[in-house]
Amino acid sequence: MIRVGIVGGTGYTGVELLRLLAMHPEAEVVAITSRSEAGMRVDELFPSLRGHCDLAFQTPDDSLLGECDVVFFATPNAVAMHSVGALLERGVRVIDLSADFRLRDLDVWERWYGERHVAPELVEEAVYGLPEMYRSDICQARLVANPGCYATAIQLGFLPLVEAGLVDTSYLIADGKSGASGAGRQAKVGTLLGEAGESFKTYAASGHRHGPEIEQGVAAMQGGGAAQVTFVPHLIPMVRGIEATLYACLCGADTDVQQVFESRFRDEPFVDVMPWGSHPETRSVRGENTCRMALHQQPGQSLVIVSSVIDNLVKGAAGQAVQNMNLMCGLTETLGLEAPALLP
Amino acid sequence: MIRVGIVGGTGYTGVELLRLLAMHPEAEVVAITSRSEAGMRVDELFPSLRGHCDLAFQTPDDSLLGECDVVFFATPNAVAMHSVGALLERGVRVIDLSADFRLRDLDVWERWYGERHVAPELVEEAVYGLPEMYRSDICQARLVANPGCYATAIQLGFLPLVEAGLVDTSYLIADGKSGASGAGRQAKVGTLLGEAGESFKTYAASGHRHGPEIEQGVAAMQGGGAAQVTFVPHLIPMVRGIEATLYACLCGADTDVQQVFESRFRDEPFVDVMPWGSHPETRSVRGENTCRMALHQQPGQSLVIVSSVIDNLVKGAAGQAVQNMNLMCGLTETLGLEAPALLP
Amino acid sequence: MIRVGIVGGTGYTGVELLRLLAMHPEAEVVAITSRSEAGMRVDELFPSLRGHCDLAFQTPDDSLLGECDVVFFATPNAVAMHSVGALLERGVRVIDLSADFRLRDLDVWERWYGERHVAPELVEEAVYGLPEMYRSDICQARLVANPGCYATAIQLGFLPLVEAGLVDTSYLIADGKSGASGAGRQAKVGTLLGEAGESFKTYAASGHRHGPEIEQGVAAMQGGGAAQVTFVPHLIPMVRGIEATLYACLCGADTDVQQVFESRFRDEPFVDVMPWGSHPETRSVRGENTCRMALHQQPGQSLVIVSSVIDNLVKGAAGQAVQNMNLMCGLTETLGLEAPALLP
Amino acid sequence: MIRVGIVGGTGYTGVELLRLLAMHPEAEVVAITSRSEAGMRVDELFPSLRGHCDLAFQTPDDSLLGECDVVFFATPNAVAMHSVGALLERGVRVIDLSADFRLRDLDVWERWYGERHVAPELVEEAVYGLPEMYRSDICQARLVANPGCYATAIQLGFLPLVEAGLVDTSYLIADGKSGASGAGRQAKVGTLLGEAGESFKTYAASGHRHGPEIEQGVAAMQGGGAAQVTFVPHLIPMVRGIEATLYACLCGADTDVQQVFESRFRDEPFVDVMPWGSHPETRSVRGENTCRMALHQQPGQSLVIVSSVIDNLVKGAAGQAVQNMNLMCGLTETLGLEAPALLP
Repeated sequence: MIRVGIVGGTGYTGVELLRLLAMHPEAEVVAITSRSEAGMRVDELFPSLRGHCDLAFQTPDDSLLGECDVVFFATPNAVAMHSVGALLERGVRVIDLSADFRLRDLDVWERWYGERHVAPELVEEAVYGLPEMYRSDICQARLVANPGCYATAIQLGFLPLVEAGLVDTSYLIADGKSGASGAGRQAKVGTLLGEAGESFKTYAASGHRHGPEIEQGVAAMQGGGAAQVTFVPHLIPMVRGIEATLYACLCGADTDVQQVFESRFRDEPFVDVMPWGSHPETRSVRGENTCRMALHQQPGQSLVIVSSVIDNLVKGAAGQAVQNMNLMCGLTETLGLEAPALLP
Repeated sequence: MIRVGIVGGTGYTGVELLRLLAMHPEAEVVAITSRSEAGMRVDELFPSLRGHCDLAFQTPDDSLLGECDVVFFATPNAVAMHSVGALLERGVRVIDLSADFRLRDLDVWERWYGERHVAPELVEEAVYGLPEMYRSDICQARLVANPGCYATAIQLGFLPLVEAGLVDTSYLIADGKSGASGAGRQAKVGTLLGEAGESFKTYAASGHRHGPEIEQGVAAMQGGGAAQVTFVPHLIPMVRGIEATLYACLCGADTDVQQVFESRFRDEPFVDVMPWGSHPETRSVRGENTCRMALHQQPGQSLVIVSSVIDNLVKGAAGQAVQNMNLMCGLTETLGLEAPALLP
Repeated sequence: MIRVGIVGGTGYTGVELLRLLAMHPEAEVVAITSRSEAGMRVDELFPSLRGHCDLAFQTPDDSLLGECDVVFFATPNAVAMHSVGALLERGVRVIDLSADFRLRDLDVWERWYGERHVAPELVEEAVYGLPEMYRSDICQARLVANPGCYATAIQLGFLPLVEAGLVDTSYLIADGKSGASGAGRQAKVGTLLGEAGESFKTYAASGHRHGPEIEQGVAAMQGGGAAQVTFVPHLIPMVRGIEATLYACLCGADTDVQQVFESRFRDEPFVDVMPWGSHPETRSVRGENTCRMALHQQPGQSLVIVSSVIDNLVKGAAGQAVQNMNLMCGLTETLGLEAPALLP
Repeated sequence: MIRVGIVGGTGYTGVELLRLLAMHPEAEVVAITSRSEAGMRVDELFPSLRGHCDLAFQTPDDSLLGECDVVFFATPNAVAMHSVGALLERGVRVIDLSADFRLRDLDVWERWYGERHVAPELVEEAVYGLPEMYRSDICQARLVANPGCYATAIQLGFLPLVEAGLVDTSYLIADGKSGASGAGRQAKVGTLLGEAGESFKTYAASGHRHGPEIEQGVAAMQGGGAAQVTFVPHLIPMVRGIEATLYACLCGADTDVQQVFESRFRDEPFVDVMPWGSHPETRSVRGENTCRMALHQQPGQSLVIVSSVIDNLVKGAAGQAVQNMNLMCGLTETLGLEAPALLP
């Protein structure tokens, strides 16, 4: 049984980790921390866990977490970088769900996250936790940087195209849409039901933090060299789910793109390529660790269109983190992640 | 491994049965029927089941279903009564999720469902599938009438009060609210998103089919004699979930009602009594087979208020049906039903 | 042209006042205040008002407001009571949309609002702004206490029954449901879309501030004497709208209740009694100043059921306030309030 | 007073026309037809119109409609083309809200709408009812083809760019999103609240009917020659509103695009260009005839991004139709369309 600790468990990725780990046959959450809610029972804050979780939030404490096999950081950005090093030294494996270790270029990180990075050497060491690209590295990793939610849906949708050199990577467009849980569980006017309900809008259209993360990934897919991705996020009046519609110019005309996608993801347990011309719904992956996608082309056009959907809290956060834990700990990759999506 | 058949699998209770049974370690769905969709793969209609279900819909056929251990009817009302008899004769256990066998008084049934009942002797035999009231009968039953969704939430909320004789059963009020999935997956103008979205209303306020079902249950709880329940349903602009707020006059002043509820449900795996004064949310049971409830009293009033929530498709339909299957087949009652709710 | 000031214009009742007054032919908003947003253009905060409002928020200031004919307070509770007196002295008429002057019993007010009241003499003077009960007083009033949103829907639904002495007022039940805008525009975790979306729940079920307000009104309707109302509010996953389902025991059997309602409200411009057995939808009054209601009785029961719907921000707040302004200023009562509801 | 007839008034564009015309000081609806609902009062079907509309639906009848000054067709596609000719001969002006007269190339029309066109000469005569492009023609027109909802939001967003020759029109992308009312009020499984609620998806991603309409418009903007627009629509889990995010490659680097937009639309009463970098919300135009837009560019990219929002039932249908009526009848263009949007 793997002993698991969770740092910062009062947000949506925290409660989603607890939900998924409650179904995991080889993992047990032994500690969950929160400065603000220390002392409160977890199932008092999240009644959905009544009968599934007997813990109370505790003040973060290295000795407590140091006895875990794996610690997940479900903290705001720029928190994990202060604490990860000490845990790694005690032999703990760490999976950071925040953005602290996602960007390899520290200048870029500091520009987007507005702080000086305190653990550059760990950025160097960290493995980007997208198993479909970095599975073997993840298996060896001490520290995994769990990808951003949009970044997961978008990179997986571009991956077969870019790896196979089929598209012009100087002009990629990703129109992303997310449910409100992507904004977290902090009290903010903008994501009140009264503000974000029954409405739809762009946000961060002049540039979003996941933009450089996606460009870094696309560059890696093509073996280096620059890539340009125009990423515009939108807020959907619903709770869970991300859909990204990707637009890319095919360089050559004669490739069977559908075949390329099916081959690339044939052995991937958590990527599902639907038949050509399908329309994936976010609800078809609600609660599930799957990225589901489909391809389109419009008559007479050389553009390929990819629609990619995930549950932002599962494949976009806690589910992918558990998938990474499974890989890091030598378990079957799908363990605890087999339940079908909740539809309707 | 229990061989399961599902009749009428294209609606919401059908897909929910498939979801739950996909997680069940001792049951396997071997046949699913639909006249309208015969020949279509199940996962084409419900992409959430891609990778979880390899079946296609088939035309209903007694020999096919006759080889099952258990058959669920997820059909419209007044369908199952025509087919159940033949299956029982072949030794199949049947769980009917429609209303065909819920009401013991055939006159009442025929008044509310507008047809002549063709299997009165099976109404006689059928056991009402509310395990919290009829567990031992269910264990012996060949035919179980799975309760209505509202009827489940409301009867469980009244149960401790009525059994203990604490309230005046000539004047019970149940104000029920349901998400739109309760209206089924049939194309109807009234439950279009454009009609039922961003709005709230009563329906069937002059009398709803679950009214007599609830009154029959309350009468049974008190060991016979008439009961009067005023039940008014409402449509919530959301997909899943029922909340019922119950109002009852306490006869005597000095009972510790909270204690009565906690005692009554202490050993029930799927009823959760929250602390006095709590506010159960429907999302806290989304996807889970739990009925969660809490009690209130307002200063200076002798009324007791119960708020009871369920997922209408789980404890209100498919989940309770699987619970009944477990009981009928001698399995652990909670098998396949352990996953926590999906929150948020 | 009536010169209007609005104190505390950054919330939902503030923006709704601005929307309604933009359509009003005889009123002009000349000042709007907000401490937190002073200096910001109104249409920067609320882009829906681009082209309709040329003002900026200002710091509250008596001389500014003192030159208005009417001032609306759209402030949190316990703010208006500090400022109203000075304005009245300057000859300004005041309509307070908060709760400061709604309850005549100061002990009750202080118990529910947790503060000492600083203007008891104004409580004495204030007229409760429900025109259907107090029209002639409102026409003479300097200070109107605009009713609470739930309190409006519920009092109007009980009014004909209680005035005519048809029901037992020692046992009235009001099951209320509100969209999330009723909770205001303050950043709070509980009304985030991620928390309140796709879910339904009770809140304040052990007692809500509108309870005593409703009981005060019911007592007045019957000409004094105690009344007991059990009021339980619920949160609907939508933005606007209140529905209240009322339950009352008819004392005598033979009254034509429908007729009583139709007579009572025949000349009321903003109360609409639908045909017996109808089901009012909240969307049918979205954006409109109407309270729409319908009556039901279930077979064999002496209970009468009233379903009453309003837009919580219009008849439940800003619209009723404008109606009161029209009355106080001698204008046609319906002026500026004629636009039909927005359906769908 | 303009005498108005509405053909096919039971859908969402029908009820929206009734709402807007109820506020119009110079128009009066004298006849509304529906084969299916003939005899039913309009306010029985749409209770939001109680007190605002005293008509009943009638069977369509040329003599009835022939006495109108203006007739709106709010019918399904391929209906109006059969009846318009006879009305024009009687001197009636016609505004068709369906697609019958939008496409000038009949081959294209017949390919997308699957029928033979029966009135090619009227296609020739009809004026495309986008006032921002064809105002003077509309003023003279007997027959106006009211634009599609997506087509309105997208063409207005591209208009300044294409007219000024700033972008490469062989590669335009329009990622559109619409609320469910865009799918109409017909009973369909796909737009049930249970199906489309709490979910998001593409549809018609391989080609949608509004694609050729938009390409025809863009070609006209640039004075002829081919244009290629990749248009992908999505379904938002809400009732009203369209947002379109447009992506276009700027040909030259040094233009002040914001300035181009502001100049182009300075005198347009129903187009609002927000400050550079803003994020228009669909709710900011709910119920209003405005197209609101904002521009973005991401660091180091030559792409310009336009986010354009409308209410699909107002500027995308009934509101634009009333605007066209005003123009055709020589009234002030904004008459009856001045009310601000409903926010929240």
